[in-house]
Parts: sequence; C-alpha cells; structure tokens
Amino acid sequence: MAGQEDEGTCEYMMKQLIAVIGGRRTEKALLLQAEEVGRLIARNGATLICGGLGGVMEAASRGAKSEGGLTVGILPQNDAKSANKYIDIPIVTGLGIGRNVIIARTADALIAVGGEYGTLSEIAFALQMEKPVVGIRTWDINGIICSDNATDAVARVFELLGS
Amino acid sequence: MAGQEDEGTCEYMMKQLIAVIGGRRTEKALLLQAEEVGRLIARNGATLICGGLGGVMEAASRGAKSEGGLTVGILPQNDAKSANKYIDIPIVTGLGIGRNVIIARTADALIAVGGEYGTLSEIAFALQMEKPVVGIRTWDINGIICSDNATDAVARVFELLGS
Amino acid sequence: MAGQEDEGTCEYMMKQLIAVIGGRRTEKALLLQAEEVGRLIARNGATLICGGLGGVMEAASRGAKSEGGLTVGILPQNDAKSANKYIDIPIVTGLGIGRNVIIARTADALIAVGGEYGTLSEIAFALQMEKPVVGIRTWDINGIICSDNATDAVARVFELLGS
Amino acid sequence: MAGQEDEGTCEYMMKQLIAVIGGRRTEKALLLQAEEVGRLIARNGATLICGGLGGVMEAASRGAKSEGGLTVGILPQNDAKSANKYIDIPIVTGLGIGRNVIIARTADALIAVGGEYGTLSEIAFALQMEKPVVGIRTWDINGIICSDNATDAVARVFELLGS
Repeated sequence: MAGQEDEGTCEYMMKQLIAVIGGRRTEKALLLQAEEVGRLIARNGATLICGGLGGVMEAASRGAKSEGGLTVGILPQNDAKSANKYIDIPIVTGLGIGRNVIIARTADALIAVGGEYGTLSEIAFALQMEKPVVGIRTWDINGIICSDNATDAVARVFELLGS
Repeated sequence: MAGQEDEGTCEYMMKQLIAVIGGRRTEKALLLQAEEVGRLIARNGATLICGGLGGVMEAASRGAKSEGGLTVGILPQNDAKSANKYIDIPIVTGLGIGRNVIIARTADALIAVGGEYGTLSEIAFALQMEKPVVGIRTWDINGIICSDNATDAVARVFELLGS
Repeated sequence: MAGQEDEGTCEYMMKQLIAVIGGRRTEKALLLQAEEVGRLIARNGATLICGGLGGVMEAASRGAKSEGGLTVGILPQNDAKSANKYIDIPIVTGLGIGRNVIIARTADALIAVGGEYGTLSEIAFALQMEKPVVGIRTWDINGIICSDNATDAVARVFELLGS
Repeated sequence: MAGQEDEGTCEYMMKQLIAVIGGRRTEKALLLQAEEVGRLIARNGATLICGGLGGVMEAASRGAKSEGGLTVGILPQNDAKSANKYIDIPIVTGLGIGRNVIIARTADALIAVGGEYGTLSEIAFALQMEKPVVGIRTWDINGIICSDNATDAVARVFELLGS
C-alpha cells in the first residue's frame, strides 16, 4: 500500500497538536484572528485541536480546513452532532467542561484568542503542565506569552516547539 | 489549496470512528485477529480509535496503519509518550481508566477482541449508549454480537452502521 | 471543642465506605433488599456511597439514613438538586456516567443489587481495581461474590474487609 | 433509632459545602489563614470540601476538624492513602487534576487562599458556574471577591449564601 493514494485515506505525517482556545461568543475581529491562526497551524503541518464548538473554535477549525489541515474537537457533550462542521475527529467526552483538562493535556502548545472563564481554566491547566501558551487579547496571567496577531502568535508557538 | 496535495497534509474524508478494545496482555492468535480488524477498518475508510496502549490496541493500530488508515489513541496517562508507535492522534486524558467512557462515547461502533475487566467496562458503557458492539472471544454479555473472526466482525459492524 | 456536642456537628468516626450500586428502575423486591443493605451498612458503622439518584440508590440511602448513617452520592449531573433526598453529601461531578469510575475507586467494597449496563461498568471497574464486589441478583461476572439476601451480602463485605 | 446516639454515627444536619482551595506549598501566614477559615466553616455548621492533599488543603481540614466539622477531600490520585489525615470522606477520583472541576461543581461557594495555577483552574471553573469565590491573597481575577483575612472571608461567603 505504501506510496499509493486511495480516495479517503492518507499518509498522516503531522506530528504536532496545537490547541486554539477561546470563547463561543466573540467579536468579529477576534474570529478573523482565530481563523488565521487555524490556517497557519495547518500550513505549518500541525494538527489543530480545540473544544469543537462555535465561535473561536469554529473559526480556527474553518481556517485549518481551508488549508487541508486536520482538526480534532474535544467535545463536552454526549453527541458528535454538537461539533462544528469543520471538525474531522470529534472526541465525544460527555464530561462537560471537565473536558477542558484534556485539551490542555493533549496540546503541545496553546493559542488563546480572547476567551472567558472556560478559556481561563484551560490556560491555567496548560501553564500548570508547563506548556507554551500564547495569547491574543486574552487573560492577563503570568506565564502567558502575549501577542497581538495571528502571524506572530503562530510563529512564536513553532519557535518554542523548536520546529 | 483545494485539489492540491502537500506533503504531510491530506483531505480527510473518513467519517466513521470504529473502536477496537481489548487487553494489553493477549495471546498471539487474538493479536493477529486484532491486527486484521485494524486493517479492515482502514480499508473500509473508517478511522480507528482505541485506548492507545499495547496488546490488542497496538495490534489493531498497526493493522490500520499498514493500510494507510488514521489512528486515534485515548490515553489514560499524562503523556503522549505512553502511546504505541502506530497512534497518529494521541488524546492525552490524564484520567486513568476513567478514559474508558470516552472510547465508548466517541466510537460509532466497537469491536472487542478478548479483553479483561477494563474491556468489560467499555463494553458496558457502549451497550448503555446503545452502540453496536461486536465481540471476538470476549465477555459473554447480553447485547454483544458474537463473531469468530476479523472479516466477519468488521463486515457486521459496517452492515450495522449502514455503510 | 473536643468532647462537646453541638447541634448539627458530630465526631465522625466512620472509616469504611461501602458502595451500593444498581439500577434506577428496579422491581419492588430488589428495592427492599437495597434498603436493608443500606440499613446494615450504617448499623455496621460504615458510610454509604452510591450514584445518588433513584431506584436502588435511593432505597439504599433511605435505609442508611434510617439508622443514622452518612450517605454520599456521586452525581452525574451538574446540580446537587438531582440527588435523592437521603443524600447527605452530594458530590456533583458533571461528568455524566463517567462518574461511575469514581464510585468504584472511592468504595472499599461494593454491593450490587440488580442493575443494568451502568451497574456492569461499575462492577468491571471495581474488579479491575481488585475490590470486593458482592452481588444480589446482578450480572454473572467472574469475580463477583454471589449472595441472595442483604444480611448475607453485608456480612460478607465486612468479613472481606476484615472488620 | 431516631434520637438515639450511637458511637460513630450522627445525625448529619450540615447543609452547605464550602470549598477551600489553595496550593500545596504555601508560606506559614497563609496556612494559618487557611486553618482559621476551616475552623470558621465548621463553626458555621458547613462541611468543608477541598482537594484533600497538603498545604492549604491540610491546614483548612485541620481547622475544620478542630471544631468537629466534617471534611471531604476530592483526591486526584488512585488511593485514599494520599489524603491528609484530617479528611473524613476521601473521594478517590483517579482523574488527576481533572478532579478540579468536581471541587468547583460540588461547592456552594469557594474560598481561595493563595494558590498557583491549579487553584486558578478551580477559580475559573467556579466563576464560570457563577458560584461565589472569595479570595485571600490569591489570583487577581475579575469576579473574585477580595478579602484580607479568614474572619471576613467566611463572613462574606455565608452572607452571599444567605445563611
């Protein structure tokens, strides 16, 4: 099979998992940033992981898909139907917001775009796990690397991951 | 980008997630069945999900990768390094065996190959969620569809999923 | 304060946590057994732990309270209001049936009274953790100690726990 | 049995569950505050809930027990032995820091004493759930009610809970 390309299958060579975290209800400007972050993650050959729902999560997923990237959604609900339509791999946890720890644990690095208390819990977990967290107009927490745009944020993440 | 094929990226078109569940320590004959189950899942265009560790999980993952399939491992530990080497997407839960419910919840259908008490908990959750569970030499639980080989087991799963 | 007894406070001296597991919808005869199991757990000075909801869980909690015992409910929902009225300490997990692993993990021993697939997942987890599981008309799983009445079941549990 | 008092049993009449959250490694002054918070929670007839480990959690538990209160520890590990010695009811989750969401979900209100990123995740969850969070020298997060000593912090919590 090696070297052969069947419809619907692929050689998966992406290694890094980058999370995009942020709120469901977010202003337009931040959604555009999130979408660009998603695009750049995919263009850098990484897989996007997120909470799988709307707002920042959906914008980032749409961005990643527009570049042919792979998207993983860690869903709080009991049903894959709750995923936004750009999610390739819906991980259906049924754990409610208890799933936030899995996003932080699974990601190699995180980019926070805006975000409310849910995002803050993910930031806190990620920093506790000593993972790189880059933030665009998000919580001002000691340990977050601040950035003001998608290009810079993604560049910093890959620089930190040494790739 | 559409229609273009970059190295390391792909159009992901696989829709169904089939879990292979079973023990870490298993006899050779069952490992061969698990590997064949993995191969057939990938050949049918589905994504393999499993617990990400050794034994039946590793054999099924190896089978799926040999056919260019995608593999997702729902890990109990805190670190992606605990995944077997055939896992493409390690979901690092840090939840211990509490992660078993996520495997059942995420899968569209499950195939149990042998297995001890951990596998039994996954079977129980899956049947509670009214998902198809096909078993090859596994627990004798009301609701499991018994099969005696990989080809038959996978055929039944896709028949039940209507694809 | 020591030695003094205020209204509403107490010296807590109960050491063992015994789980009663079983279904929400259960026939009358089993509910009576569950209530008797709860009574005997409390009379033996142990604390009752259960899933906190109706059916067998409620019957066992009512039994324990009728003897002045303490009851802990590990709830799947997001709200303590979902607990039955005999629960003293509602642990509100919001994890759905993912909370089943916590019941098994927290209990020193478990008594299963009837039960469907949810109960089976708890039995499986408990046996994986090598905890004593005594069953009254429940799943026929290798490792369960079968009993046919509450008195015998509770006696066996405390015998196994060496108390 | 009602009205009778057996050794080791009690009529449980405490209704409110107050969480004390904070770090394992904390300076002496904060530990004294945490112990006083624990004492006052018990004196007000509430049950203490915490993460069950050392530092602030242990100090608060010790305080609560010195007043004859009841203490619940939501443990990350797989074993009740990891609980500090002042925990009456060890809830053994095996979920690692994923258990933080349960502390926030179960508490009627929370008092944060100092704390690092783990505490921040609990604060974030609690505020997302719209629960009162009073903080003594902890994270400066919008939504936290700041206090500078145990007496004031506990008074505010019970005022907010309307009791």
